[in-house]
Amino acid sequence: MKKIALTIMEQLTPKYIQVSRIEFEGPEIAIYVRNPKALAEHPEVAKEIAKKLKKRIVIRTDPSVRRSEKETIEVIKNLVPPEAGIKEIKFDHVLGEVIIKAEKVGLVYGKGQSIYNKVLAETGWRMNVVRIPPVDPKDLSTLNKIIDYMLSQSSYRLEFLRSSGERIHRGVIFENRYVRITALGGFMEVGRSAILIETSESKILLDVGINPSGIGYNLYPRLDIDQLNLEELDAVVVTHAHLDHIGLVPYLFKYGYRGPVYATKPTRDLMVLLLLDLLDIMQRSGQKPPYTQQEVKKMILHTIPLDYGEVTDIAPDMKLTFYNAGHILGSAIAHIHIGEGLHNIVYTGDFKFGRTRLLDKAHTEFPRVETLIMESTYGDRDQPRRDEAELELISVISKTIARRGKVLIPVMAVGRAQEILLVLVDALRKKLLPPETKIYIDGSIKEVTAIHLTYPELLSAQVRARILRGENPFDHENIVRVEGRQMREDIAKSDEPGVILATAGMLTGGPSVEYLRLLAPDPRNVLVFVSYQAKGTLGRRILDGEREITMVDEEGKPQLVRIQMEVKSIDGFSGHSDRRQLLAFLANMKPKPKNIILNHGEPQSIHALAETIRRRARHLGLPEDIRVYTPTILDTLHIAGVA
Amino acid sequence: MKKIALTIMEQLTPKYIQVSRIEFEGPEIAIYVRNPKALAEHPEVAKEIAKKLKKRIVIRTDPSVRRSEKETIEVIKNLVPPEAGIKEIKFDHVLGEVIIKAEKVGLVYGKGQSIYNKVLAETGWRMNVVRIPPVDPKDLSTLNKIIDYMLSQSSYRLEFLRSSGERIHRGVIFENRYVRITALGGFMEVGRSAILIETSESKILLDVGINPSGIGYNLYPRLDIDQLNLEELDAVVVTHAHLDHIGLVPYLFKYGYRGPVYATKPTRDLMVLLLLDLLDIMQRSGQKPPYTQQEVKKMILHTIPLDYGEVTDIAPDMKLTFYNAGHILGSAIAHIHIGEGLHNIVYTGDFKFGRTRLLDKAHTEFPRVETLIMESTYGDRDQPRRDEAELELISVISKTIARRGKVLIPVMAVGRAQEILLVLVDALRKKLLPPETKIYIDGSIKEVTAIHLTYPELLSAQVRARILRGENPFDHENIVRVEGRQMREDIAKSDEPGVILATAGMLTGGPSVEYLRLLAPDPRNVLVFVSYQAKGTLGRRILDGEREITMVDEEGKPQLVRIQMEVKSIDGFSGHSDRRQLLAFLANMKPKPKNIILNHGEPQSIHALAETIRRRARHLGLPEDIRVYTPTILDTLHIAGVA
Ligand SMILES: [Zn+2]
Ligand SMILES: [Zn+2]
Ligand SMILES: [Zn+2]
Ligand SMILES: [Zn+2]
Ligand SMILES: [Zn+2]
Repeated sequence: MKKIALTIMEQLTPKYIQVSRIEFEGPEIAIYVRNPKALAEHPEVAKEIAKKLKKRIVIRTDPSVRRSEKETIEVIKNLVPPEAGIKEIKFDHVLGEVIIKAEKVGLVYGKGQSIYNKVLAETGWRMNVVRIPPVDPKDLSTLNKIIDYMLSQSSYRLEFLRSSGERIHRGVIFENRYVRITALGGFMEVGRSAILIETSESKILLDVGINPSGIGYNLYPRLDIDQLNLEELDAVVVTHAHLDHIGLVPYLFKYGYRGPVYATKPTRDLMVLLLLDLLDIMQRSGQKPPYTQQEVKKMILHTIPLDYGEVTDIAPDMKLTFYNAGHILGSAIAHIHIGEGLHNIVYTGDFKFGRTRLLDKAHTEFPRVETLIMESTYGDRDQPRRDEAELELISVISKTIARRGKVLIPVMAVGRAQEILLVLVDALRKKLLPPETKIYIDGSIKEVTAIHLTYPELLSAQVRARILRGENPFDHENIVRVEGRQMREDIAKSDEPGVILATAGMLTGGPSVEYLRLLAPDPRNVLVFVSYQAKGTLGRRILDGEREITMVDEEGKPQLVRIQMEVKSIDGFSGHSDRRQLLAFLANMKPKPKNIILNHGEPQSIHALAETIRRRARHLGLPEDIRVYTPTILDTLHIAGVA
Repeated sequence: MKKIALTIMEQLTPKYIQVSRIEFEGPEIAIYVRNPKALAEHPEVAKEIAKKLKKRIVIRTDPSVRRSEKETIEVIKNLVPPEAGIKEIKFDHVLGEVIIKAEKVGLVYGKGQSIYNKVLAETGWRMNVVRIPPVDPKDLSTLNKIIDYMLSQSSYRLEFLRSSGERIHRGVIFENRYVRITALGGFMEVGRSAILIETSESKILLDVGINPSGIGYNLYPRLDIDQLNLEELDAVVVTHAHLDHIGLVPYLFKYGYRGPVYATKPTRDLMVLLLLDLLDIMQRSGQKPPYTQQEVKKMILHTIPLDYGEVTDIAPDMKLTFYNAGHILGSAIAHIHIGEGLHNIVYTGDFKFGRTRLLDKAHTEFPRVETLIMESTYGDRDQPRRDEAELELISVISKTIARRGKVLIPVMAVGRAQEILLVLVDALRKKLLPPETKIYIDGSIKEVTAIHLTYPELLSAQVRARILRGENPFDHENIVRVEGRQMREDIAKSDEPGVILATAGMLTGGPSVEYLRLLAPDPRNVLVFVSYQAKGTLGRRILDGEREITMVDEEGKPQLVRIQMEVKSIDGFSGHSDRRQLLAFLANMKPKPKNIILNHGEPQSIHALAETIRRRARHLGLPEDIRVYTPTILDTLHIAGVA
């Protein structure tokens, strides 16, 4: 620390910037300055420091040079054009940030950050602008809660950043003697994803999910081994906001973890929303949740958001970089660089190597890769083409509406819901569906969609362009938001046809299960699966042919439900790569890995994929002696280091 | 503890035995009694307790009822016949044991333990009789040192036994959630054998060897991973006294280990002898040993000797049983029973499934087995028949002697040395060699041979019978013991032919290397390898064709030695099972394992053996879905428990 501070103060910053002190703040080095004007006028100085030190730099102003709130608001209002649509301005006195909620983020920052730099120079405050999309304000309630909570706990957060910063930069004690990967969950199965990466220096977790269908030990990843000691844990890296990857993150805080959680910004927001929603559903259905809102709040304060492509120190011998995974909003492929070139791991998380309406396809180029950990959900089968899938969906809906039935589409709140909404809105606009077709959406879909509108820069070019034009591509006048049990029953009982999008996507609880019970007896209705149904879930059981199901009615009594509605599964909408896309990802990947570890798939998918990769290694451009590993839970692989 | 004590005192022991207290002493439950007479007269009481509790029982007398040393010696002298040849009587007042060194152990104990029981009843002292073979007393010096040292540290030892007893019986806290095996050394290689067995309750090490040829990290097994915490280690199990299995045991004590080391009695004795010898050689050759005599002494005090077939609690959820491995004196196959039937592991250590002159072949029947960890040294090749090998050796010696050359046979002090001695002595007796053929033995061979004579009951029927008749089957009038450098040089320079047996067996140091330097230039001489030469050793390099070697001369100067003596390798003497024997062991094994983990072999041996086992699974009577694992260092396999 001292060495870095001296270097910065004596060699890297010109005297006129007036550096008052240097602090570690999480993965960043914070430089406190007394002359923000000089720095704003010479932005190249900060860039130069970051480049020289190979560290992330944040510039903070000394509190003594910050102007009053009133004066600062005045400066901002004078500089930012009214079209920017500023809704709210708040001040974080601890971090020296002014948080601005606005409709057009770009207009607030100004061209080439010009307004940002002027505000900093004149007031000493750094602007942090959050996009407020044009939606029903209650759809933004979780987002607003996160912002307000972080603001209220600003001192705690600064302290956390300082202590984790010290830890990250603690310096390497041992040589790099080993890199080991332990399968804690989501190996030879889909669900409860969790991977331990361990070196002689540090330990990190990649994802900490729950099993949507699990019971007992199967529900959680195996955090119970001695090898994983929460006090020794340096970081938790979260690839995307699906419960099978994030469901147990707050649990770590319950058991004493106080380190950072790295995620993209949208993953953080979606994660909070989904976890609070999960707690809510568990409480209402009488289940005992493994943690409370308190731990979700701790998690918020300990989450460090990262942008794609941002190289970040997360342990003395590890750097993390996220890349787009194309799976859902904010989903990331994690690249981990270990020990000055010793080893590089790419963990795909869930990924889609194919364009969807919503997202660009997954990134394939990395600075270096020796070991690839790859999901294998569809390792044994191809999926139909996307346009065929859309045609089939529209045709099923049309037929059902013609016979005055209802279409129930269980969807995960994040990802599939938005994709299907885009398809349906498009079909309505193109009049491929009868103009009176109502689309009911239930569960947290609306709020999740609002979060999508907050991050247009992460969506596909087409969707982004429409959002930036001020449109809401997920909305249509025929869309009806459903709230409460009574409304559900009314919809189910009415004679009007319609399409219902409801969570959970695998019928593991939530409104989709309520609709199923109400709609099951009528053969005019249809249940349409558009996503992967994990083993053990109700969705999978029905897909596998089960037609008599015991469910709980409104009064909590068990009831035998006979499924007489039609059951359909339309493949091709998946957010996962199918077999062809998995192989294409390998063929396109640069550079090629030496080891491939397959996870996130049922045994037959994983074995089939392993076989295919070995057989086609040369054709895929992989080394001919490629090692393909198919570990099971609690196995540990030693992938690098000395023998 | 309290529960067990109450059960013993109130239900299992008749009042007249007068139990004064109950203690855990290592794996045993010690019952202290005030009326040894009653117990000696009712030996069935102790047996009954052991059976009921499924624990090992040791009976100790209350110090208050023990008679004086003088009176006790009187009683013993009156009861034991003079032919027993008592040499020495010592008293251990802490443990209440009288240690008797004698020529004929059986005569001291009496028929059916009759004298033992009488001495106990009349004096309150338990006899512990040690066999003193008729050899040069200096060959017994290590043995005597062990006995004397243990006696002098009797209080420490009792305290250690008590504390480790408490720990072993600490009770199971967690359910049995996992059983994991981690490769620390000796996987895909021969050398530095070490295996970590880990459950949710406990952790044990199987063997802790060094690599005879290693440098840097390769020298030691990988004890540097966080998963292995010496404070959490419950036990060290040692299968046999070869340096690649025991070389680093004292190192554990240097770094704070204070738990038990389980080994057979001869393994303990040989281990001490070899480790002290190793320290000596390292010091004399200027190497820095990884530990000192102090740690070897600590190891002696912490070693708990076990007989073959004795089921012993070594952790709250683990029972250990040793079985004959047929490899060297005292070598054991370790059977580990985990968690009331959850899982059973058989670790072969080094084993010979074939009779040798010295030992019976390895045991094949076990109460239960799910996972077999098997050595694979000769997994890819068969060895010639033993009688052919003997004929070849005799013929090579005869030819060399005829041309007035010398035969240098590098041997490991333990195992091969005694086998070859038996062959040579037999050949001399049968006049297959010229009557004047001198056999020089150098290194610790003599002392090791004396230890063999101490444990006739563990040797083959033929050798045992001769020893019990008072013969020394390893001795002959032509055998000359060599001591010191000068004598070596004289032998080398003299024009007399002869056979030299010298350690180390792989030319990694010791007198064999000195002889090599002296004998190498003369083409009349021959170097004969009779055992496995590990990768990286000088032995292996010469075997692979290297003929110019840099060696250090008497004055410590490097010297280029050109090997012009003949080099021969005679296969068939190995103490390891060859390919045929490895497969025969599997075919004979009862019951059959579900998992086989291969270790202790070079990659080509292990891969070949894995292939053969998979292909012949049905033919070997193994389950057709047998899983054969070939892990590399630092891999961990999860072999049992919940998913
Ligand atoms: Zn996902
Ligand atoms: Zn997933
Ligand atoms: Zn630990
Ligand atoms: Zn051995
Ligand atoms: Zn060995």
